[in-house]
Amino acid sequence: MSDSRILNMVQEIGKEAKKASRMLRGAGRAQKDEALKHMADALIKRRDEILRENEKDLKNARDIGLSSAMIDRLTLNEDRIEEMANGIMEVASLPDPVGEVIKMWKRPNGLIVGRMRIPLGVIGFIYESRPNVTVDAASLCLKSGNAVILKGGSEAINSNMVLVQILADALEKSGLPKTAVQMIPTTDREAVKVLISMDEYVDVIIPRGGEGLIRFVAENSKVPVLKHYKGVCHVYVDEYADLDMAQEICFNAKVQRPGVCNAMETMLVHKNIASEFLPKMLKRFQDAGVEIRGCEKTLEIYPDAKPANEEDWPAEYLDLVLSVKVVEDMNEALDHIEKYGSNHTEAIVTNDYNNAQKFLSEVDSSVVLVNASTRFNDGNQLGLGAEIGINTSKLHAFGPMSLEELTTTKFIVYGSGQIRK
Amino acid sequence: MSDSRILNMVQEIGKEAKKASRMLRGAGRAQKDEALKHMADALIKRRDEILRENEKDLKNARDIGLSSAMIDRLTLNEDRIEEMANGIMEVASLPDPVGEVIKMWKRPNGLIVGRMRIPLGVIGFIYESRPNVTVDAASLCLKSGNAVILKGGSEAINSNMVLVQILADALEKSGLPKTAVQMIPTTDREAVKVLISMDEYVDVIIPRGGEGLIRFVAENSKVPVLKHYKGVCHVYVDEYADLDMAQEICFNAKVQRPGVCNAMETMLVHKNIASEFLPKMLKRFQDAGVEIRGCEKTLEIYPDAKPANEEDWPAEYLDLVLSVKVVEDMNEALDHIEKYGSNHTEAIVTNDYNNAQKFLSEVDSSVVLVNASTRFNDGNQLGLGAEIGINTSKLHAFGPMSLEELTTTKFIVYGSGQIRK
Repeated sequence: MSDSRILNMVQEIGKEAKKASRMLRGAGRAQKDEALKHMADALIKRRDEILRENEKDLKNARDIGLSSAMIDRLTLNEDRIEEMANGIMEVASLPDPVGEVIKMWKRPNGLIVGRMRIPLGVIGFIYESRPNVTVDAASLCLKSGNAVILKGGSEAINSNMVLVQILADALEKSGLPKTAVQMIPTTDREAVKVLISMDEYVDVIIPRGGEGLIRFVAENSKVPVLKHYKGVCHVYVDEYADLDMAQEICFNAKVQRPGVCNAMETMLVHKNIASEFLPKMLKRFQDAGVEIRGCEKTLEIYPDAKPANEEDWPAEYLDLVLSVKVVEDMNEALDHIEKYGSNHTEAIVTNDYNNAQKFLSEVDSSVVLVNASTRFNDGNQLGLGAEIGINTSKLHAFGPMSLEELTTTKFIVYGSGQIRK
Repeated sequence: MSDSRILNMVQEIGKEAKKASRMLRGAGRAQKDEALKHMADALIKRRDEILRENEKDLKNARDIGLSSAMIDRLTLNEDRIEEMANGIMEVASLPDPVGEVIKMWKRPNGLIVGRMRIPLGVIGFIYESRPNVTVDAASLCLKSGNAVILKGGSEAINSNMVLVQILADALEKSGLPKTAVQMIPTTDREAVKVLISMDEYVDVIIPRGGEGLIRFVAENSKVPVLKHYKGVCHVYVDEYADLDMAQEICFNAKVQRPGVCNAMETMLVHKNIASEFLPKMLKRFQDAGVEIRGCEKTLEIYPDAKPANEEDWPAEYLDLVLSVKVVEDMNEALDHIEKYGSNHTEAIVTNDYNNAQKFLSEVDSSVVLVNASTRFNDGNQLGLGAEIGINTSKLHAFGPMSLEELTTTKFIVYGSGQIRK
């Protein structure tokens, strides 16, 4: 497709999304939940179409030699389609954030002022992930009253197109505009450029994928962007930690799913408990296949570790690799996190009340935990419902984003003839 | 100054601001309020220095032939310095938003999850206004725990520099870093470019000034921007309005201060009351010097008006000019606002319950009012305290921004050894 055809096409999609968003603003919970139910039903009913289109993507993936892990991520089957449908029904069961008045107060002149939650409008969602993300994003945006423009990865284009077609048909059946959920039907990067330039139609861009994609979007977008680049998450094992608990939390934070952004990348250990804690802990990590890169003191205590260098401290390994540092005291841990952290997720293990409170108050991360695994930085796990992404810049939503984070508030004012003096 | 010297200088300021912001995060209300008190005292005590520097700006202004209105805006005197000091003390009297836990809940696994308000970090504030804005911005940022980098207009550079010097000295006296409030000491536009590119040091940019400045910042910033371009505010006089009340509200909305963004630019009038309402209303406007640009129906009822053309409907006059349109019904009014409005401020005058509720719910503006003047879109008037600006994009803060809007929330999690299954 030529650049000018892409421009016209994406702008047309933007215009339609804007129109749809106005209609969605007024939709009540009953209508949105009914639409979600139709969407879930339609996925099950039309699963053969989905599998047929998915097969095309799988064939292309094999032809270009994608890794078996990538192919697994791409593969849909009846179970996975049912999971997607269940995910939609979970979103339907969540409360509707739209219309909630979160605060209301009376002014001395009698004006009654409230803040009412409203949808953001049109969300541009750019992602490189599995086809189920298409369905998650569409259902969260619909429930929060937003139209969404999806731009998925090229390897899943056929699967994504048929999924969106099915969702849009279901929307129409419920009396909502089918243009509330649209997919940009091209794999051309130019389409991303157009999408992030359309500030007249799009209210926010959420990119999800590799750091390269996210940086490209953040640096070139005229539309505000909610994003996180990386998660360099720390667990600090305090001198007053329960060392058994510390071992369980650190092991879970590193090993349970090392490839995700809320996995621990650096373990900070107070010097007073280092020689008791580290040998058992690091042995357990090594037995689980974790490569240890330690500071000098770590190496003194546990010579089997490799030496860490300056590049290790800011590194997001996303793998079975862990950097370990012995610190003089909690202030050194806080300084280390301040210098090398990514404002994502940090945890302390301690039984000391003051250290727990100090850590919670001073660490400048979207999620700060005491005596719990970093892996809990997740919309579902924190009780927000499904999540559409994590934001580590502080504007609008710091941390996991779910339905409320897809809304904003407007001021509503009930007067009785007040004028400004 | 050469571009590379400006680059180094602004980056150094950014680095210092980032360091200061870490110290401010931990400052309690008592310390911040004491600093504010010192700031207010110091302005009074050092007023002679302020007036001397202000005189330099005034001399330059006269030399380059600035208008007398501009010179008046720029002029400081003892009364105005006292007003600035009072403004600081008002900010001191507002509650501290930092540390407030706005919600807390317990998860099935026992995790206790809360959302705690924290400062944004470093605010870049770019403005073209009077010197008092320097003091307002500095005090709001300090109270909300943020460091601020100020970039004021060139015509006020000497006044702004001495004000910031005085504020910074007072900060230091209170044991807070003087780099919490810094002014970029150059009038070079290049400094703005550097400031909006430093996403490693600056968390948010707030531009205030003409549309040209704001567009430049919004289109070139790598840092998120909170802004509003313009206020094309509407009052809709419904068929069920109290016409006397409507007249007072519309007159106030247009005439009380026509040069500001929350003044009415377009009046929409239901056809059923147009012939009763318009003649008296428009006569009153004309007597007050307001130029009327009406639709065809307006001209039929009130031939003294000028005809409006298509450019009038999206225009922000910021002057004694008003466009007037007679509409068939409320839906036409809503459509007009949707098409030409700027998501800023809209009001309805009506005694009909359903129309009031429908207008409040459907109008997509940062402040929507029933039976009150659009001029109430203001942080002070709505009860938020002083304001640092208005945001008409929906991210982070929609509408007037005060202390709470200079914060974000992080998740704090109290655990007892929980790990993810």
